[in-house]
Amino acid sequence: MSINHGANLYGLSSKYGFSKDEFMDFSSNINPFGTSNLAKEYVINNIDMVSMYPDPDYINLKKSISNYCKCLAENIVLGSGATELISSFIKTINPSKTLLLSPAYSEYEKELKKINCSITKYFARSEDDFIIEPNELISTINKDNYDLIIICNPSNPTGFTFSKTQIEDILKNTTGFVMIDETYIEFTDTDIYSSTNLVDSHKNLFVIRGTSKFFSTPGIRLGYGLIGNEDIRESINSNLDLWNINTIAASMGEIMFSDKSFISHSVDVILSERDFLINELSTLNGVKVYQSNGNFILCEIKSKKITAKELRENLIPNKIIIRDCASFDGLDEYFFRVCILKPSENRLLLKHLKEIL
Amino acid sequence: MSINHGANLYGLSSKYGFSKDEFMDFSSNINPFGTSNLAKEYVINNIDMVSMYPDPDYINLKKSISNYCKCLAENIVLGSGATELISSFIKTINPSKTLLLSPAYSEYEKELKKINCSITKYFARSEDDFIIEPNELISTINKDNYDLIIICNPSNPTGFTFSKTQIEDILKNTTGFVMIDETYIEFTDTDIYSSTNLVDSHKNLFVIRGTSKFFSTPGIRLGYGLIGNEDIRESINSNLDLWNINTIAASMGEIMFSDKSFISHSVDVILSERDFLINELSTLNGVKVYQSNGNFILCEIKSKKITAKELRENLIPNKIIIRDCASFDGLDEYFFRVCILKPSENRLLLKHLKEIL
Repeated sequence: MSINHGANLYGLSSKYGFSKDEFMDFSSNINPFGTSNLAKEYVINNIDMVSMYPDPDYINLKKSISNYCKCLAENIVLGSGATELISSFIKTINPSKTLLLSPAYSEYEKELKKINCSITKYFARSEDDFIIEPNELISTINKDNYDLIIICNPSNPTGFTFSKTQIEDILKNTTGFVMIDETYIEFTDTDIYSSTNLVDSHKNLFVIRGTSKFFSTPGIRLGYGLIGNEDIRESINSNLDLWNINTIAASMGEIMFSDKSFISHSVDVILSERDFLINELSTLNGVKVYQSNGNFILCEIKSKKITAKELRENLIPNKIIIRDCASFDGLDEYFFRVCILKPSENRLLLKHLKEIL
Repeated sequence: MSINHGANLYGLSSKYGFSKDEFMDFSSNINPFGTSNLAKEYVINNIDMVSMYPDPDYINLKKSISNYCKCLAENIVLGSGATELISSFIKTINPSKTLLLSPAYSEYEKELKKINCSITKYFARSEDDFIIEPNELISTINKDNYDLIIICNPSNPTGFTFSKTQIEDILKNTTGFVMIDETYIEFTDTDIYSSTNLVDSHKNLFVIRGTSKFFSTPGIRLGYGLIGNEDIRESINSNLDLWNINTIAASMGEIMFSDKSFISHSVDVILSERDFLINELSTLNGVKVYQSNGNFILCEIKSKKITAKELRENLIPNKIIIRDCASFDGLDEYFFRVCILKPSENRLLLKHLKEIL
């Protein structure tokens, strides 16, 4: 199987002879502080939950998400990771013409191709520092009848982010569906940027969230989607398998969304490290650094002294893995992405980058 | 959502005011000894695995299943519970005409109806004690061209079981696919009854297994299917989501399939309790008890003194839940099913049944 989502640590570990835990993985965008201790302790103290079927209605989990996202519990659908929801939503609305903001996470295009949907890419450009003007986007939308507009907000890999007000403008200017992937939204100010509480009032909005990145739980497979459109929601639910969320994921979810100490500590350190890393990376010779609202930073090797692939391979013996962005449509072989890890790891990354570049 | 798979303890708990853990659940067919302690301890001591993506190739998990089932690792597909595999296999081979051994678990029919497959039911009959003669079945198969034959072995809810030799005879007499659901096979002698090692040599066989029942892990959602037909296997895999098995399930699986002490203890106690319960239930007034190779026993209230539904409701205040089998096509409102719990619980069940019947 070919994997294109950050590092496959299992494969790298067997190839390079390091244990998985030794790698500093700057490529997978996962919060380096691990997950909520409250949630982990609950699992440890209640491990026998593995012997019980999950609640088929996931009532407590949905209550917890509803509080966290400030939207109605009835508007929530649950997925085994955000991936299952992307796939399920696209299959359900079965669009014939989609506008895909690009560069973008590869799963959207993969799912659109499965249903033979025509795809128009709306590119953020490096010469604009990957900033998208909402009015330009809206005039493109108005020119054509798209059934679906896909926006990753903050954008992975560029880091650009629309405000909630701008998203509302976009919603008002289309009769199609707008799917917003908010996988990285918690690394920025959700009051300004998150669209979750718009789902109760906008029937053409679907907001997707995952817990893999901010809550550092890619292992449990817990994603959630928010949608006020009852017909579409019921249709998605009818296509999902019964018990698609395991009991560990359901219990951890109930707890971690309200673990304020975990949330504030993660945000505080990562935002301050983001400022630090953006500044320091900008001092590297021949490297352009793009602003980001996510927990990752897109960089371009303007000097063309080395490709991103070569840079990545040069770093691996130091147990550092970065993301070569050549596979993103709209970027080239000189773009790489790093995420924000712990302060000491970020400093090690900078040290080795300085040596190579 | 309407659930028809044993008890929804969450719903019953909120309806009757008992905590979920207080119920003796004789309806869900789960091994009452919980799961492998080795597997649970591993999770407790390595809880940080939740912060790591699963191995997309699940190499160690497949090795462990391969040893356990005595078949090639390359012939394994993994599902988020057996349910995902039933659904995925049926969608993939897309049969137009299926022979469904009945009465049967409701999921097969549900999935067949989704693809508008014509269904012929081959009923085991109470007057034959639900025993199926392989030669009669084979002559039915020979009369018509079925794309698919579905057999649950041991049969849920009747408890009847084909031997591996009989399954091999069936395989040789059809050009269609044979899907064998071996969810309950570990409660009987797998050397005699299991078909897992036939998959390496028979291209029209798909064996499905789950870990929910024998390994008492419905909460982790781990199922696996065995199929030697490469084209079908690749097609199933391409429809499954990336990372469909969470890291807890993958790690527990690696360990529990080789936990010989858990396996032998479960088999020893449950088989001896099965004999005991079959004998004791047979002494109840007006109740017919059917032989079983599973961890459950089908009973019929011949006296018609009370329906299975009424019996179930009468037992709930004693915190006992049994399965009313009226919803199984081919059974009527006087059939109920009980599974084998711990010795003390089985005796409590008998005590209350004796009072009511």
